[in-house]
Amino acid sequence: MLIGFDADDTLWHSEIYFQAAHAEFERILGAYVDLHDARVHDALLSTERRNIRLFGYGAKGMTLSLLETALAITGHALSGLDVQRLLDLGKAILAHPVELLPGIEQAVTEVAADYPLVLITKGDLFHQEAKIRQCALREHFSRIEIVSEKDPETYQRLLAEFGVGAEQFLMVGNSLKSDIEPVARLGGYGVHVPYVVTWALEAEHALEAGHPRVATVKSAHGIPGAIARLLEST
Amino acid sequence: MLIGFDADDTLWHSEIYFQAAHAEFERILGAYVDLHDARVHDALLSTERRNIRLFGYGAKGMTLSLLETALAITGHALSGLDVQRLLDLGKAILAHPVELLPGIEQAVTEVAADYPLVLITKGDLFHQEAKIRQCALREHFSRIEIVSEKDPETYQRLLAEFGVGAEQFLMVGNSLKSDIEPVARLGGYGVHVPYVVTWALEAEHALEAGHPRVATVKSAHGIPGAIARLLEST
Repeated sequence: MLIGFDADDTLWHSEIYFQAAHAEFERILGAYVDLHDARVHDALLSTERRNIRLFGYGAKGMTLSLLETALAITGHALSGLDVQRLLDLGKAILAHPVELLPGIEQAVTEVAADYPLVLITKGDLFHQEAKIRQCALREHFSRIEIVSEKDPETYQRLLAEFGVGAEQFLMVGNSLKSDIEPVARLGGYGVHVPYVVTWALEAEHALEAGHPRVATVKSAHGIPGAIARLLEST
Repeated sequence: MLIGFDADDTLWHSEIYFQAAHAEFERILGAYVDLHDARVHDALLSTERRNIRLFGYGAKGMTLSLLETALAITGHALSGLDVQRLLDLGKAILAHPVELLPGIEQAVTEVAADYPLVLITKGDLFHQEAKIRQCALREHFSRIEIVSEKDPETYQRLLAEFGVGAEQFLMVGNSLKSDIEPVARLGGYGVHVPYVVTWALEAEHALEAGHPRVATVKSAHGIPGAIARLLEST
């Protein structure tokens, strides 16, 4: 049995920094437009959704989408100082030190004592590598895979490279869409550990409730027990 | 023997698009400052050099560096329309269709008939994957490795994953710094195919002239012959 772990919002905090940047973005735009207008909030999400196919995931693409949205909303009246503020929001995310989630270090160590582990994360290659280098958990993972999209095709390619079938694979992660649903569809197992917030583009999934090979736990502390129960019951 | 190919400026055009964007950047800044001032040109390079450790390589990081430099040079007087123009320069690079270099398709096909091939490229994961998907040469490569930096440590890790020693590896690429020098230092071979232009940050290398395991050819047409001569002579 091979166990995969997601990284952002599973091992360490990530989405809270993006949501803080979004809040600051809205505060900056408040000097130009009426923030009660729902279009302000919707504009950023629709820009990000449109740009994903060109930018992929990560802080650099988010920063470019913040700028594009701000220019559109203000009719290009955005000041140079506010352009600088938006650039700085992106750089602050890239420079943020890694903060592990409560209980994850112990959970990973416990699971690593029983199974080989791989880290499977999407997003910006350079930023993900920088975070992995900073992180004390690196040594527990036999492989690090940074991918551009976590869909069934990607998991199928990775499992072929690892030389294991889907029924020999369990994925631990915070995203039903990216970590749990594609692996369950292939015939594998999933342990879902919800994060405190979910990005709107990650909230879209079609996994039925009560899937027999999927467990949900409240925090990292529950991961080793959930893996044991899922694999014993089959 | 395993043969590695670089991608940007070895298989397809890349740096000319970046240099065209830099030229357009200077044209836009000409409305604010005296372009004969060397500081304008130097400012972009020093911003890019400083930001590489945060952004890595690629068009998204370049775009953020263009914006940062333009704000600094104009004292934040940059107009919203010019911010939009700079954003559009970056998006145009990301959306540019892949243009293979003359002779490379035949060269790769010929080499693939005799040796297993791997593609080793640095830069933005998402953009590189998009270019590889568009490219007819994909089928010739048994593995695609997108890395954040092409230094001796990275090549050593990859060679260990491939299960070959450096003396069983030859790298084909346009960059002495990223493709040829690190592989030659490890004990491997290199075929250098200079591209029409070299980014200033790639021009820095310390490889001695006339290295016994390195050949230089004028264009892709010379690659198969250079590989044969290098490997026969040893």
